[in-house]
Amino acid sequence: MKYHKSFYQIKSNEEIFSKIVKEKEHIGYYSLPFQETKEIKEFAKRVKQKHIVVVGIGGSSLGTFAIHHFLIDKENDKKLHFLESTDPIDLQRRIRKIDLKDALFIVISKSGTTIETISILKYLSSILVLDSSNTICITEEDSKLNSFAKSKEIKTFDIPKNVGGRFSVFSNVGLLPLAIMGLDIDKLLKGCQDIYNSFFEKEDYYSIIMEKARFIVENKNRFNINVIFSYSSLLDGFNKWYVQLWGESLGKININGTKQALTPVGLLGPVDQHSFLQLIMEGKRDKTVTFIKIEDFNDDLTIPNISLEGLEELDYLNNIKFKNLINKQADSTIQAVEDLKDIPYDVITIQSQDEYNIGKLMFTYELLTSIVGSFVQINTYDQPGVEAGKIILKKSLKKEK
Amino acid sequence: MKYHKSFYQIKSNEEIFSKIVKEKEHIGYYSLPFQETKEIKEFAKRVKQKHIVVVGIGGSSLGTFAIHHFLIDKENDKKLHFLESTDPIDLQRRIRKIDLKDALFIVISKSGTTIETISILKYLSSILVLDSSNTICITEEDSKLNSFAKSKEIKTFDIPKNVGGRFSVFSNVGLLPLAIMGLDIDKLLKGCQDIYNSFFEKEDYYSIIMEKARFIVENKNRFNINVIFSYSSLLDGFNKWYVQLWGESLGKININGTKQALTPVGLLGPVDQHSFLQLIMEGKRDKTVTFIKIEDFNDDLTIPNISLEGLEELDYLNNIKFKNLINKQADSTIQAVEDLKDIPYDVITIQSQDEYNIGKLMFTYELLTSIVGSFVQINTYDQPGVEAGKIILKKSLKKEK
Repeated sequence: MKYHKSFYQIKSNEEIFSKIVKEKEHIGYYSLPFQETKEIKEFAKRVKQKHIVVVGIGGSSLGTFAIHHFLIDKENDKKLHFLESTDPIDLQRRIRKIDLKDALFIVISKSGTTIETISILKYLSSILVLDSSNTICITEEDSKLNSFAKSKEIKTFDIPKNVGGRFSVFSNVGLLPLAIMGLDIDKLLKGCQDIYNSFFEKEDYYSIIMEKARFIVENKNRFNINVIFSYSSLLDGFNKWYVQLWGESLGKININGTKQALTPVGLLGPVDQHSFLQLIMEGKRDKTVTFIKIEDFNDDLTIPNISLEGLEELDYLNNIKFKNLINKQADSTIQAVEDLKDIPYDVITIQSQDEYNIGKLMFTYELLTSIVGSFVQINTYDQPGVEAGKIILKKSLKKEK
Repeated sequence: MKYHKSFYQIKSNEEIFSKIVKEKEHIGYYSLPFQETKEIKEFAKRVKQKHIVVVGIGGSSLGTFAIHHFLIDKENDKKLHFLESTDPIDLQRRIRKIDLKDALFIVISKSGTTIETISILKYLSSILVLDSSNTICITEEDSKLNSFAKSKEIKTFDIPKNVGGRFSVFSNVGLLPLAIMGLDIDKLLKGCQDIYNSFFEKEDYYSIIMEKARFIVENKNRFNINVIFSYSSLLDGFNKWYVQLWGESLGKININGTKQALTPVGLLGPVDQHSFLQLIMEGKRDKTVTFIKIEDFNDDLTIPNISLEGLEELDYLNNIKFKNLINKQADSTIQAVEDLKDIPYDVITIQSQDEYNIGKLMFTYELLTSIVGSFVQINTYDQPGVEAGKIILKKSLKKEK
């Protein structure tokens, strides 16, 4: 008797765990939490410029922006800028804010030939001299951008071949600009390490991540939209990073030829209570919702004990700290969702607004993405679907010449 | 013989059109394009302050932000700020950027008792004197915020009762701050008028909007996600406004007790080619995609004719204008989607970056939302689903006292 099948079943947690343990031997991001950061910190310390300009798009900027936006008030007095879009008006708006004479340009492209990044690099080269005094490149060691850097004696930092762009925030890609901005990158990595250890030693985060991934996968056809509802404006960048990580990693055709679709949506509370919440509450049950809260904002801004004529009915707001108000807004929304009984939700509470906690949160999401990808049997780390457009663009641009 | 039914069928275009024609007698936003703007313009002209601060959330700020962000380089030298979130760190970051002594506060709340807005108003009242010299209120004529304003002789502008918050951008809510920022609000309204006339006189936009709405509704169970992919960073605010308009208007239980779900997603090109595009291309076919392009950015920023050592293979980019590059990136992505043959997409090209065109675009989306709402037989203009959380919050805050 022989047996052959063309379908796949969802594997057991144990099988997935073994796959991930094997995978981490050749997928680079898993080991980033344990890297040596001395060279980065020493370089960062020597940076004299006031304006730090990340030239990079997608995975080369989203993670850095996420952490920067979360911790901006903990940074030194340097200004961090991002140049990424080819929108000419947006690009000029951004360049106008930079003191070009007092700027360090960090040109980031894994492949070294990203069209947006090189276009902007060319433009910058026409308005000022880019050399070893004001430019560094972060790229693969054998890329064309690396050759460019060498030709000008510009310092380069490596992106390991086996670290994908959207998983690169804890490589030089993110650590270097963040260290220059005065953030504690060791604490960031400590957050990652703790999640890593908890997961691989099968402690708390093993079951949290595994069960979450399994639920999402088992119910992916019913709940095809995965909402993150972050109750802090500081997590706006994190949401965008999540959308890339989730969408680009999991939007794939699997081993069985089936088009997967776990669609990420990022929301901010309380702002999106006045927008998307209605759709969650009364729309079709096609969404899972993950609420993210900051337990202690470490900020005591308080609604004053002031009664405004005509608005006395709102005096119950008096003396409430804003950090308690926003968390009560989160809790009330969570309770309202809970009361409906038919929306799958979970709540991630991070302790405080610091490097350690954002490291934990982001590394958790990287692991979760890998586990979900492993469950649905796709390649989590490539992005073949974006090649077609790139080829058409290149042809069209070359034809015009 | 008697006959009774509890289901509904999708109505004919003609029936929907008649419903909309009747609806515009009592739904206020339809007539906003034809309002008198003299009072607004005269008030705007007299504003001396340099910092203009919109205090408002959701429908009170999203539309204004959308137009402001689109046209920021066409504004005068005043600075427009938005205070909306109760996130204490975000709130303080924003307040630090305002010169409080040279600021006009525009407090906007339709109901007059929006918790976020009144909390911020109370806080502001504790750090400076708010009076007729530096504050105006935009609210319903009989609201508690209106009573507050009257008690301090603060000037008020009306939000008509029959204009919903998310449909209020072309009322005083949006027009007043935008006029103060030096934008031409008559041109904005001219854009709306042209769409209005084209639709109600059954010209081009009648069939464009009707056919689009009908396709979305007929296929809503298959394509439950409606993506807008805007090829300009300037449309970031528009995307967010669209998400509110679409999600909060259409996420409803319909006449038949069915939970509707047309989930809006806003993307920006080319940035999100490096993020969400993979999911569109290889993910499950559960999305419609609307590309938005700007035909002429009226900006000639050009990639210079520079060959960078090592990067010579990218010299085909030389001498290309950025505005042409971004539009070719859009066209290439559109072509790649077209080649797949199984993703429903459409392309909206707006002529240029100005008041007239953004007015057209936004009014088109307001009409589209109304028509879709009418097809699926819901109340497009309420938001009952967000009440539960508000009640829980109020109880919880009062209990703490």
